[in-house]
Amino acid sequence: MKTYAAYLQLVEQALPGALDGLGEIPSPLRDAMQYSLQAGGKRLRPVLLLAAADLLEGSVQEALPFACALEMIHTYSLIHDDLPAMDDDDLRRGRPACHKAFGEAVAILAGDGLLSAAAEVMLNAAAGMDSLRGTMAARAILRRAGVCGMVAGQTVDVTMEGTEPTAERVTYIHRHKTADLLTAPLEAAAWLAGADPAQREALLAYGASVGLAFQMADDLLDVEGDMAQLGKKTGLDATKGKLSWVALRGVEGTREDLLRETARAKAAISTLNKDVTFFTSLADELTTRWR
Amino acid sequence: MKTYAAYLQLVEQALPGALDGLGEIPSPLRDAMQYSLQAGGKRLRPVLLLAAADLLEGSVQEALPFACALEMIHTYSLIHDDLPAMDDDDLRRGRPACHKAFGEAVAILAGDGLLSAAAEVMLNAAAGMDSLRGTMAARAILRRAGVCGMVAGQTVDVTMEGTEPTAERVTYIHRHKTADLLTAPLEAAAWLAGADPAQREALLAYGASVGLAFQMADDLLDVEGDMAQLGKKTGLDATKGKLSWVALRGVEGTREDLLRETARAKAAISTLNKDVTFFTSLADELTTRWR
Repeated sequence: MKTYAAYLQLVEQALPGALDGLGEIPSPLRDAMQYSLQAGGKRLRPVLLLAAADLLEGSVQEALPFACALEMIHTYSLIHDDLPAMDDDDLRRGRPACHKAFGEAVAILAGDGLLSAAAEVMLNAAAGMDSLRGTMAARAILRRAGVCGMVAGQTVDVTMEGTEPTAERVTYIHRHKTADLLTAPLEAAAWLAGADPAQREALLAYGASVGLAFQMADDLLDVEGDMAQLGKKTGLDATKGKLSWVALRGVEGTREDLLRETARAKAAISTLNKDVTFFTSLADELTTRWR
Repeated sequence: MKTYAAYLQLVEQALPGALDGLGEIPSPLRDAMQYSLQAGGKRLRPVLLLAAADLLEGSVQEALPFACALEMIHTYSLIHDDLPAMDDDDLRRGRPACHKAFGEAVAILAGDGLLSAAAEVMLNAAAGMDSLRGTMAARAILRRAGVCGMVAGQTVDVTMEGTEPTAERVTYIHRHKTADLLTAPLEAAAWLAGADPAQREALLAYGASVGLAFQMADDLLDVEGDMAQLGKKTGLDATKGKLSWVALRGVEGTREDLLRETARAKAAISTLNKDVTFFTSLADELTTRWR
């Protein structure tokens, strides 16, 4: 196993080239895609994929295109989420959002392009394999990003603003808007590295709990965070009537739930007969500061 | 070989169930996706895929999920294209555009959802095959729909409005915005049915010419068509400064080019040692009225 920084470096090195491999993308489409893709961030999803592949003694090199694809999908979701008709955010990671830098039309197309590119990158990798492993990994990622996964969560998040934050609704939004795309790297790694059913189950349970914890931490940061540090406005959830975990459970209740989910994540991954320090440390960091 | 109507019926029967197979899609996401998917149209892309698979003596049944996916991709592109920030069209096939019926946020998500669903449907089918055929077919379709294909064409179409209609620009837009998604079904069928290189080349050449002819006919209809019959406004290309074939070559020049491309399409498909009446008739119909 490598450090977080080492996996991160692999992702940062591979990301720009992942788009180059697709052919000649016209400007300003390419510029807008790269602008948002290069905006930084912790690259949590691709790092999780590489680390999980490594943990299962799979090939990190082989997992790299799928890791890049996950970051493209995450980035497309942020671009579309920031659009005026959606969350209407002008700032993303301290810079103008894609639609402020390139206009709405190009931002819509850049989002469409990043989702397409993600699928292309994964299927190019899958096409070069000797089995359906890559196809299954791509399928897992696209399902978790799709109409019963992330897009479903986004829809309920956007359309239920201002309604009562019931446990059912808030849990649905968190699970699909956020946790699905954090479970996707673990599921994809399980396919790529040929996990057995028990390994797969442990990884998926870890992803689901870490995903919920991640969104709870994010909801807390919106209440308690510092705009300069986060690179985006805070306090927006309440203004918009977002069905956040804080709206459902309050700050103290969310802190408790966050600790509980973190413990669950650590317990799940610890059932593997391996050194899982990387994963338990990562879960712990979520209880302090993340994103 | 069956008739156009028979392939069309297969598509219409399979389309609603193709979404059902993905799981529980929340409203209003599902409603918006179905609304646009069920808006009718000639289903030219999926019919082409089924007919090409049939011509190559492949399985029409096996091709059906890929046909449905192509129609989902076409539909997502129309939904996003109609958005206020893009072409700003309120009418589509005689009904309110998706963003007028469901609002902009849900329309953006319905487009994202249809592209995701298309990938999911294809990879579900590919995952059940005994080889990488399905993976290769899905890859071909997603590439033609992607950042060097349809999305590239859309970007140049939207961002070059009002500039000089050079042959290079107009050809680029037509080839990628339209012809790529009409070549995709032929390329996918070639993978699914195991075409030899000569068959593949003939099918791709047919698709490229039919695709260009199709967009030329569309540009002519915008000048000469009847709004009531088309179900959308006409005369918009000139108003918006679109780089249409008519803007480049005039009405008479476009008519000539349309006939030439149709002849090319028929010549290409006729190199196959098969009864290609279905495909030559279809190309001929493009010279009269289509879409």
